[in-house]
Amino acid sequence: MYTLGLDYGTNSVRALVVRCADGAELASCVVGYPSGREGVLLDPRDHHLARQHPGDYLFGLEKSVRGVLASARKVRGFTPAQVVGIGVDTTGSSPIPVDARNVPLALGAKWRQNLHAQCWLWKDHTSHREAARITELAAQHRPQFIAKCGNTYSSEWFWSKIWHCRQVAPKVFAAAYSWVELCDWVPAVLAGVTDPREVQRGICAAGHKALYSEDWGGLPDKEFLALLDPALADLRDRLYPKAHDATASAGRLCPEWAAKLGLPAGIPIAIGEFDVHYGAIGCGVAEGTLVKVIGTSTCDCGVVSAQKKVPDIPGICGIVPGAILPGFYGLEAGQSAVGDIFKWWVEVVCEGNAARHARLTKEAARLRPGQSGLLALDWQNGNRTILVDPLLTGMILGCTLHTTQAEIYRALIEATAFGARAIIERFKEYGVPIDRVVCAGGIAEKNPLLMQIYADVTGCTMLVSGSSQACALGSAVSAAVLAGAHPDFPTAQRKMTSLKKVSYRPRAAAQQTYDRLYALYRQLHDSFGGLNKSADLSRVMKDLLALKS
Amino acid sequence: MYTLGLDYGTNSVRALVVRCADGAELASCVVGYPSGREGVLLDPRDHHLARQHPGDYLFGLEKSVRGVLASARKVRGFTPAQVVGIGVDTTGSSPIPVDARNVPLALGAKWRQNLHAQCWLWKDHTSHREAARITELAAQHRPQFIAKCGNTYSSEWFWSKIWHCRQVAPKVFAAAYSWVELCDWVPAVLAGVTDPREVQRGICAAGHKALYSEDWGGLPDKEFLALLDPALADLRDRLYPKAHDATASAGRLCPEWAAKLGLPAGIPIAIGEFDVHYGAIGCGVAEGTLVKVIGTSTCDCGVVSAQKKVPDIPGICGIVPGAILPGFYGLEAGQSAVGDIFKWWVEVVCEGNAARHARLTKEAARLRPGQSGLLALDWQNGNRTILVDPLLTGMILGCTLHTTQAEIYRALIEATAFGARAIIERFKEYGVPIDRVVCAGGIAEKNPLLMQIYADVTGCTMLVSGSSQACALGSAVSAAVLAGAHPDFPTAQRKMTSLKKVSYRPRAAAQQTYDRLYALYRQLHDSFGGLNKSADLSRVMKDLLALKS
Repeated sequence: MYTLGLDYGTNSVRALVVRCADGAELASCVVGYPSGREGVLLDPRDHHLARQHPGDYLFGLEKSVRGVLASARKVRGFTPAQVVGIGVDTTGSSPIPVDARNVPLALGAKWRQNLHAQCWLWKDHTSHREAARITELAAQHRPQFIAKCGNTYSSEWFWSKIWHCRQVAPKVFAAAYSWVELCDWVPAVLAGVTDPREVQRGICAAGHKALYSEDWGGLPDKEFLALLDPALADLRDRLYPKAHDATASAGRLCPEWAAKLGLPAGIPIAIGEFDVHYGAIGCGVAEGTLVKVIGTSTCDCGVVSAQKKVPDIPGICGIVPGAILPGFYGLEAGQSAVGDIFKWWVEVVCEGNAARHARLTKEAARLRPGQSGLLALDWQNGNRTILVDPLLTGMILGCTLHTTQAEIYRALIEATAFGARAIIERFKEYGVPIDRVVCAGGIAEKNPLLMQIYADVTGCTMLVSGSSQACALGSAVSAAVLAGAHPDFPTAQRKMTSLKKVSYRPRAAAQQTYDRLYALYRQLHDSFGGLNKSADLSRVMKDLLALKS
Repeated sequence: MYTLGLDYGTNSVRALVVRCADGAELASCVVGYPSGREGVLLDPRDHHLARQHPGDYLFGLEKSVRGVLASARKVRGFTPAQVVGIGVDTTGSSPIPVDARNVPLALGAKWRQNLHAQCWLWKDHTSHREAARITELAAQHRPQFIAKCGNTYSSEWFWSKIWHCRQVAPKVFAAAYSWVELCDWVPAVLAGVTDPREVQRGICAAGHKALYSEDWGGLPDKEFLALLDPALADLRDRLYPKAHDATASAGRLCPEWAAKLGLPAGIPIAIGEFDVHYGAIGCGVAEGTLVKVIGTSTCDCGVVSAQKKVPDIPGICGIVPGAILPGFYGLEAGQSAVGDIFKWWVEVVCEGNAARHARLTKEAARLRPGQSGLLALDWQNGNRTILVDPLLTGMILGCTLHTTQAEIYRALIEATAFGARAIIERFKEYGVPIDRVVCAGGIAEKNPLLMQIYADVTGCTMLVSGSSQACALGSAVSAAVLAGAHPDFPTAQRKMTSLKKVSYRPRAAAQQTYDRLYALYRQLHDSFGGLNKSADLSRVMKDLLALKS
């Protein structure tokens, strides 16, 4: 028995065939999205904008699945008939405006070229004003709505984006019958769902991004939505009354897509979750284990038994029952940019390439903690946790006339490590146990310098996921449980996931220096982030951005 | 009648032959110092160290004067016999340990290789601990000593350096009979002075750097110096009882050097002043005119009639009667790094060359004020005015994932402009009139982008000195007055100095944006510089430097 995991990333989609018995990865196939710049539609006049063409998802679906099956067929004993289920994970919150037949507006000729009719990619930050207003209105009228997402509603999320569309592109908004998260939309396509109201929505996206909770009967009430815009209250009827955890199914593979893909019709399709949530499952997330998926940005996931009471944690993006593992609260935090910061430094500022990355890594590895006299803030793309503010910006402090590229490179790595520590400390302060950290993603596998710095800065041993495709693997695990290959998630995780042999332990001397550097980082973090009211510099970055625009 | 101006810069010495009647520059000759890195002796283990080999000054003296005379001879009607005086300016405070015959220790075989026996170049910052201690002791016991130098004694100055030598190289200190400022030493060499006690000392170096004042009978009293170290109290007897303004002469050209240089023996040698002080004279400094010499760093000079009462100005390095023009208080302020910051960015960080400077200037010129969202602090080499703290470091704030080399380049130019504005505002606050700003130095002549930004940021029209060799010209003006070619300095300045036709006027729209950016700059400046006690981040940079060392 095998399952298929599909992982829709920011630039490409990956298909993975996994053996249910032991998690062996038979074959994988990655297909880049053909549109825009590495799959992302940009607006040169507005750096905040990031959209994606929904047609790319269908193109990538067919191409990656056919590709992975072609490769897997070469493995002795495998036939596509042995695939018993499909799991899908995607980026998010990435909502798509669809018509009454669940077809994205952007697939029709009329809206094909309109940026607002595309999928609003997770990292689109055009909606920061709407996010601030939602935060304000919720604080005033429905504090419970945002209590579990750090008391701040983000510009990256569902309602901010849809409301922004309503403001800047009212015609697109009017043409949209409904909006579907990418992670719900792909499973629905596979299941042949042609009515948005019949799309099975996952609680992962609903709970983390759309203010859905069974505590208040699902999505935000119409009265609240009408405070934003009456049109949003109307939209509520065309969304969904109920969202599901991964015990539910998104449907069964429809004949049309079974034929296109070369898979058995009728096999179950797991409920969609965000990439890092299924990734957390693929990394063996459990109570006490924090999973860090380190890529362009990071996502940090933990779980706490649903039997316990989890307090609201200020600055943590979401605490949602069932969002990751059924039977557990899913906790999500993250850093808005990690790999993207190094890429910015090396490629944009230093105008270098992969060889430069390698050279700077080598040079940076020769530096001792504290040796450069530099300290940076990792906010080049805002701060997702614990300040939850997209309008924060990066800083490099401590420059002398001798400061080098490599010193700044290392300071930027350290800055992201300090950001990681701030998250871990916040979790622990509020009683979420973190005994081990499992990392996944290209950086975790290929950058031992970064991993050692993370260990030294956080004081945690850094473990590395056994799979290089943890998200797709987690999707396949979910499909395997749904298909009955395993009785439950813990069993499936035990059988199907693993750790690499390498691990990074904190070194006492480095830890000591980094404790002092972290204290300085927190001074800047709290002053510029507005947490320190007595040395408040929180307007500086905002005023600069106001001057910029 | 002609005079010869000699300008000892950081990397080279320049000789200039000037016609007294109209300031026409007949010929000039530049000779680089042969030792170290571009003439500067460095210590790879300590970036604060910068020394210079005194032999380079003699080498440069002979070569540059012979060179300039050879060129001038080609001009119809000129003969070296028409040279009626010599003026010398140098960097400072650049004290040299000398023996009892006024010979620098480093010229003897025993100390030739010892870094501490060389000239302690102005930009040497190894003495920051001593400077802090002198500031402390003066504040406690002799507050008047530092009241006129911004209440802070600098690591770049005479006593800090000599005390540091006493601490780290006691044998060198013991071998030194006396210490002579470079600007006093070169004229003394030309005059054939072989006893340090007979060296005519200029009030410029004495008053600005050595705490000399007639108010308290010359140099600091022995009781105070003994608080630092009894050996410094002993040294006082081997220094000087009296320092002179530019009405005095340093002596007459001795036969030995007259022969070496090919000049008439016995012509008068003007008292030595620092480069920017004679540079200010060469730019036409007068009451109401601020002269900015913009190079690797800047020096800002103004004068106020000695008839008036000038208050102590916190953070202004020196207010010394006669230091620039006889009959006027000389006021000196400055920025520790300007051109050096751009050089650092382009050459050290971006690993570029002159072509990169040109490209970034072009790209930066296309940006509007505020467009990048960046704000920088210009403290890569500390802050000389108004914080007077070498242990401050540079900062770049407002980085996004799209921030470019050129944007940072412009932000660094703007940062130095904000630093310039802070100085001008401080002067004005304390009643020093500034009606016009005359700039000199390569940057003033060749960087219209920077000059326009300075005009927009400061709100002052920026004028440019007519001479590209204002320092050497000022030395020649001083020599012309001393030789009787003109009755006084104002007359000599009127005849011998000029302005370029180009000028840069503030543009209202840019000024408005820069007013807002400057307010933000001052927030950072005051928080990190320790002026804002309620949002004090002044420990951050210091703690980083402590971790570094």
